[in-house]
Amino acid sequence: MKSWLEKRAALSPDQIGLYSGDKNAWTFRDMNEEATELAERIAPYIQNQAPVALLITNQPQSVFLIHALQKIRVPVLMLNNRLSQNEWQYQLENSDAQLVIYEDQFAIEADRALSIGELRNGVRQKVQAFKKEDVCSIMYTSGTTGNPKGVMQTYNNHFANATGSAFNIGHKPDDIWMCAVPLFHISGYSILMRSVIYGIAVRLYEKFDERGIHADLISGKGSVISVVTTMLQRLLDVKNESYHPFFRCMILGGGPAPLHIVERCHHEQIPVFQSYGMTETASQFTTLSPADATRKTGASGKPLFPGEIKIVDDQGGDCAANVIGEILVKGPSVTKGYLNNDQATKEAFAEGWLKTGDVGYLDNEGFLFVADRRSDLIISGGENIYPAEIESVISGHPSVKEAGVVGKKDDQWGEVPAAFVVLIEQIEEEDLHTFVKERLAGYKRPKVYHFTDELPRNAAGKLVRRKLKEEINHESF
Amino acid sequence: MKSWLEKRAALSPDQIGLYSGDKNAWTFRDMNEEATELAERIAPYIQNQAPVALLITNQPQSVFLIHALQKIRVPVLMLNNRLSQNEWQYQLENSDAQLVIYEDQFAIEADRALSIGELRNGVRQKVQAFKKEDVCSIMYTSGTTGNPKGVMQTYNNHFANATGSAFNIGHKPDDIWMCAVPLFHISGYSILMRSVIYGIAVRLYEKFDERGIHADLISGKGSVISVVTTMLQRLLDVKNESYHPFFRCMILGGGPAPLHIVERCHHEQIPVFQSYGMTETASQFTTLSPADATRKTGASGKPLFPGEIKIVDDQGGDCAANVIGEILVKGPSVTKGYLNNDQATKEAFAEGWLKTGDVGYLDNEGFLFVADRRSDLIISGGENIYPAEIESVISGHPSVKEAGVVGKKDDQWGEVPAAFVVLIEQIEEEDLHTFVKERLAGYKRPKVYHFTDELPRNAAGKLVRRKLKEEINHESF
Repeated sequence: MKSWLEKRAALSPDQIGLYSGDKNAWTFRDMNEEATELAERIAPYIQNQAPVALLITNQPQSVFLIHALQKIRVPVLMLNNRLSQNEWQYQLENSDAQLVIYEDQFAIEADRALSIGELRNGVRQKVQAFKKEDVCSIMYTSGTTGNPKGVMQTYNNHFANATGSAFNIGHKPDDIWMCAVPLFHISGYSILMRSVIYGIAVRLYEKFDERGIHADLISGKGSVISVVTTMLQRLLDVKNESYHPFFRCMILGGGPAPLHIVERCHHEQIPVFQSYGMTETASQFTTLSPADATRKTGASGKPLFPGEIKIVDDQGGDCAANVIGEILVKGPSVTKGYLNNDQATKEAFAEGWLKTGDVGYLDNEGFLFVADRRSDLIISGGENIYPAEIESVISGHPSVKEAGVVGKKDDQWGEVPAAFVVLIEQIEEEDLHTFVKERLAGYKRPKVYHFTDELPRNAAGKLVRRKLKEEINHESF
Repeated sequence: MKSWLEKRAALSPDQIGLYSGDKNAWTFRDMNEEATELAERIAPYIQNQAPVALLITNQPQSVFLIHALQKIRVPVLMLNNRLSQNEWQYQLENSDAQLVIYEDQFAIEADRALSIGELRNGVRQKVQAFKKEDVCSIMYTSGTTGNPKGVMQTYNNHFANATGSAFNIGHKPDDIWMCAVPLFHISGYSILMRSVIYGIAVRLYEKFDERGIHADLISGKGSVISVVTTMLQRLLDVKNESYHPFFRCMILGGGPAPLHIVERCHHEQIPVFQSYGMTETASQFTTLSPADATRKTGASGKPLFPGEIKIVDDQGGDCAANVIGEILVKGPSVTKGYLNNDQATKEAFAEGWLKTGDVGYLDNEGFLFVADRRSDLIISGGENIYPAEIESVISGHPSVKEAGVVGKKDDQWGEVPAAFVVLIEQIEEEDLHTFVKERLAGYKRPKVYHFTDELPRNAAGKLVRRKLKEEINHESF
């Protein structure tokens, strides 16, 4: 079975598939050669169909590695490079990963770890693709229980997202999709899939640098870009000129955007498409076109064809239009479940519908309004942070009795985690911070610690994070 | 399960989905209402999941009927309205059709036949969709054996064709696809599917009228059009002005185009995309873009993503580049087989590849060159004609011993059927013509009869049509 890149290289060998920096470009033929070489270097280490983990940054080489694993047709576990050693370890063990390939800069400790340096110096072996594996990629997300779960994205999921997106925003054979979001997130990974499926170029950015991206937007170096709210805000902060007419679509994801930002975009004629999606839907699931944006302010749009959405109440019954309930999604881009976690998979679905845990409503024209992400979810600079995971770590400190974590509003990041901690015995905040630092990625670490005598709980003894959130933000939620 | 039209109407209710004539337009909401009403009127007649046949012309009502049957989710058997009563009868029986719905102008004789007039006057009943049927449409094509076979096109086949086409020619949300090809052919039917999948309008023409279409092309009434060679020739004959810039793509199918026509298109800057496809591939399977057309004159392009093509020799081995052999195709748009004909299905496939029977080669860049359609196939004005079927009818005349049918070159139609007949006893050509007329559609009837003493046969006794073809065209073939 040929990989998507291989098919694309056969169809459009001379078309540029990847740009990086001002001077570097690869045709699909070049990319296929790079990926084939890497696949042949990885092949000697492959023993079965278990996932291979990648710990990488936004480098052209990472793109080739991702395609190399598609050639071998083993699932790739995309490790978030901002996590801590403990967090990586959990994902590697939970996924039964057979190998982790890492950029030399990351000091990961794991059995069967292979640096890219070692890989490049190893032997080559003809690739024998495993034919039946339909899982393309795995990305861990945490849930309300605090245990990260490996979301399985099949080839069909990615294909369905790519097609739905094309039907929605249109597809121009000369499009260039700017990727400044991480490749280990679904937002970045899905751009690579669209590139080979559509036959268009990706312009890859190592990091999000608003001045560099702004310069590229005004000089016409890209036609589509995926951003999260923080990035958009930073772009607006430096905007001093109109974008080039080649630029036609800015897909805004990763949490609700404040109205004033959306309005400024309309005012400045930035073609912003608000969207709603998640790792479980292989990137955006609904999109609001600029045409509808002015009359549907605050909406996240309608599902990409042929996805479906419904809103249900606590008993699972359908909500009428304009009535808030839980958002359920269904369609070919929706995950088939969580890796090695049948229980979580079973709990996540109801009669074929994925229960997102997010809250919202459909208006009487069918536009989705996301009232709130899962009530406990903190979105910080586009990263999802699940309080239960942080609480679990803090509570693990011998001097801590219990902890509650909520999002504190932040001008730069949207939200940052804040912790309320009940102590068993007196300790310094610095001790706690050191303890957490060893166990959690930087963006997940509380920026504020409040020591308190008790946490607000309801009659059933369940933590009421809403009250903590009110307290920390000095306003009603 | 919602039909594609229903989903599309929910996503883009106010978007125009269908134009007909200068004054008539329907939004997707309107179309959905029309189709729902028809589905409810058809519902009382539905007993099981057997196909429902449609005998219609290119009318807006036909579009609504097609979508109505998708709502009920029974397969539709699209009857070619140019066939004879006997030919229709064969298809209805072979497919076990449970019902035939026909425009009142067609005097079809069949059990369970229902005119649209009767249907419109009947009762309505809530639609209960059959959920599991994945066959969307059935179209009969004849083969070398002379027995027409019902090609099953699944929903997935249509979806795959629609997506592959969009990735190939691009997709603009404001596209309007001009449909002057018959809805009962895959070329027309597939346009309706793309319309609801993409969310774009179809401009439907009852008949191909080159002057009317030319006027619409210069005034910008459409952006994409599907044509066969005969139509293109007729368009060129009346062309006296440049087409509107909104018009961006002319998909040319239905048999090889003479070079002089393609060259004239390039000269006149008509964006012609040569393609190769068949009923079994749910419309075009390869497409040659104008960008490649000048350096790949005569090619049919490369497969639509993610389809694959290979060329094999008589022993089924892969041919090298530039070596002629049989064309095999594989991919999600390829039929799963022939209705109620496991034997034909089995014979048509080799390890998942469909054997097209057509002959051609891939050049060293992977471009397909169709050397010839199945050696015996006659393509007349875009319609496929299989000699064996006509020979079988002629041989059925009591005074005929045997017959051989081949294509005679024709300026207007490309080819027309010509018959070589060996008689048992003397009869008038007129008698034979009358006999054939009762049994075959007009376009299939031989335009010329040659009475001869014997037919050329090879050592195995097999008819050598090539020799008849040389004789009739007075040139080597």
